[in-house]
Amino acid sequence: ASGRVAEIFADIKSTKQIESVPNFWRTLASNQDLLESVWGEVKRWMHPESVGREPKLDAQTREMIALAVSATNGCAYCLNAHTAAAQQLGLDAETLGEVMAIASLFNRTNALADGFQVTPDVRPQ
Amino acid sequence: ASGRVAEIFADIKSTKQIESVPNFWRTLASNQDLLESVWGEVKRWMHPESVGREPKLDAQTREMIALAVSATNGCAYCLNAHTAAAQQLGLDAETLGEVMAIASLFNRTNALADGFQVTPDVRPQ
Amino acid sequence: ASGRVAEIFADIKSTKQIESVPNFWRTLASNQDLLESVWGEVKRWMHPESVGREPKLDAQTREMIALAVSATNGCAYCLNAHTAAAQQLGLDAETLGEVMAIASLFNRTNALADGFQVTPDVRPQ
Amino acid sequence: ASGRVAEIFADIKSTKQIESVPNFWRTLASNQDLLESVWGEVKRWMHPESVGREPKLDAQTREMIALAVSATNGCAYCLNAHTAAAQQLGLDAETLGEVMAIASLFNRTNALADGFQVTPDVRPQ
Amino acid sequence: ASGRVAEIFADIKSTKQIESVPNFWRTLASNQDLLESVWGEVKRWMHPESVGREPKLDAQTREMIALAVSATNGCAYCLNAHTAAAQQLGLDAETLGEVMAIASLFNRTNALADGFQVTPDVRPQ
Amino acid sequence: ASGRVAEIFADIKSTKQIESVPNFWRTLASNQDLLESVWGEVKRWMHPESVGREPKLDAQTREMIALAVSATNGCAYCLNAHTAAAQQLGLDAETLGEVMAIASLFNRTNALADGFQVTPDVRPQ
Repeated sequence: ASGRVAEIFADIKSTKQIESVPNFWRTLASNQDLLESVWGEVKRWMHPESVGREPKLDAQTREMIALAVSATNGCAYCLNAHTAAAQQLGLDAETLGEVMAIASLFNRTNALADGFQVTPDVRPQ
Repeated sequence: ASGRVAEIFADIKSTKQIESVPNFWRTLASNQDLLESVWGEVKRWMHPESVGREPKLDAQTREMIALAVSATNGCAYCLNAHTAAAQQLGLDAETLGEVMAIASLFNRTNALADGFQVTPDVRPQ
Repeated sequence: ASGRVAEIFADIKSTKQIESVPNFWRTLASNQDLLESVWGEVKRWMHPESVGREPKLDAQTREMIALAVSATNGCAYCLNAHTAAAQQLGLDAETLGEVMAIASLFNRTNALADGFQVTPDVRPQ
Repeated sequence: ASGRVAEIFADIKSTKQIESVPNFWRTLASNQDLLESVWGEVKRWMHPESVGREPKLDAQTREMIALAVSATNGCAYCLNAHTAAAQQLGLDAETLGEVMAIASLFNRTNALADGFQVTPDVRPQ
Repeated sequence: ASGRVAEIFADIKSTKQIESVPNFWRTLASNQDLLESVWGEVKRWMHPESVGREPKLDAQTREMIALAVSATNGCAYCLNAHTAAAQQLGLDAETLGEVMAIASLFNRTNALADGFQVTPDVRPQ
Repeated sequence: ASGRVAEIFADIKSTKQIESVPNFWRTLASNQDLLESVWGEVKRWMHPESVGREPKLDAQTREMIALAVSATNGCAYCLNAHTAAAQQLGLDAETLGEVMAIASLFNRTNALADGFQVTPDVRPQ
């Protein structure tokens, strides 16, 4: 890796405090704009301190959302990477279980609400 | 509608024993090959008697599968149309509820098996 | 509603502290086992205090997961209901925006990791 | 496994008449409430006789719905497990093919109805 | 709208050459970072000329990909907006039909390959 | 393979100009109607010259749509097969990256439009 790609790889390692560049980022480097685009977004939302942004959610909560979405989509790579990330942040097995319990429950209720064509409730304004 | 489209519309009405062509088919007619392609497949699998094919599944079971998939994808048009079709075939509310119960349960267990990255069981051959 | 359904409807109103039974639950009542099954699960995971369970996640975090999953699946009814629920718990617009930012970002990275067939990283054990 | 987990594992083996506990259930045991919750639901809907419930659908039809949903979501573990379960119930290859034919056809028509934004048909009441 | 939001709204109107800001962007403005983040990405990939990037794909092809993904996810807002965008770029009804034919066909074959757990083909290197 | 299956296998090899029948088609052969049905559709839309149909889209664009849908659904087999097919048609890594960039971007904006329940824009007729 050289030039712009090398700089982004260095930033990934320093921001995430890891020794080697994960396969995801190596793969995206086949299109430099894509690497820059996705890394910029991951920095912004998952590493807000690195861009001087004040986040509303803490790092554990952000990883829980990542896991809930990835479980819904069934993305093996993402689940592997973000389960590890959540564990490093101290998420214990029982809490991970509760995240999956709730994420999977809503996959169930989503299918029911759609399946039965339930009309939204009118709420007093 | 004229020519090939008119013929397919007539076949839809006669095969499904309905008076007017549903919006789905009217919309597909913007591309005649698409209309022909999709109608051919729906005839083959959902109206097997019309093409002289001996089905393995009865009409109610076929509609249950249609509903389970459409609930999983959240397709409003399809759920509307196939709930009506299932009811016309005599599917009562309690059975429809069981279809949705099972379909939604597997949306839940799918998310859990994916979310926890569960390894397939080795089975004796 | 009478009998078992009436009891569950009463429990829904008292547990959720609402005046009328939402359409979702009215619809599920077409199959009493389904109503009981889904309400039991929603009580257990979304209203843990009502079943004497000590949750790992607070109510706001649980709603964030519900919203992240429902946005991924595009379930209109669920998004309507749980956006309202999250707001009642005090989730402000900026935080909701961050939930959606992260949920949508992972819908993007999930598609990329799958799309490029990225191999999971080997991690030191 | 001990205590509540051991009891559920024993119930899984006896209900499913299998010798060892599948990986899915071993994984869920990291959160006992989750194990209890999901097993309770799978018992209720997929093994109704074990809870004294009179099902509307027979065991083969239930497995067909499980397979149709799992194919739609692309859940490898679930497809592996429930293809085996369906075969044990006597579902032959040609019938499995028809299940997949119909499930996949509705994945196609769902995308078409959504993609073209087809308006639901008005039906005489 | 004022400050950063007003600037982005002005940029949206000028880049897209439209008179009013679409609801999507108005909604995202509830979180300014989200608005900036998503608009930055849409500019980069869908309006490459506005950021001085040389695209590999022409505008019609980009819209076809947008439509294929949105049909797969069943996103009503996105399909509404991008069908209009594609038509403005000159995409005729028959070509749109072919896009939907192919997108829907792959929703079918995806379900089949997953449903039957097909093993990837070994290819000569 | 014999009879109708053997004929279709021969047609697959000759139409796709390949030496052996991919696993996908071998698997579908467990139900001859399914094999015939899916191959007929793939011929029609992905090999239009073989059925004397004048396509609106060129072969590269068709493969891009296939890849965008398969990335959205996370179908490993399909991504493996169609990435190879796209490369054989001359799609370079940077263009593939742009396809994935746009497909993944719309997975993001789809989740946002759905997640925020954005109302479609009214457009002048």
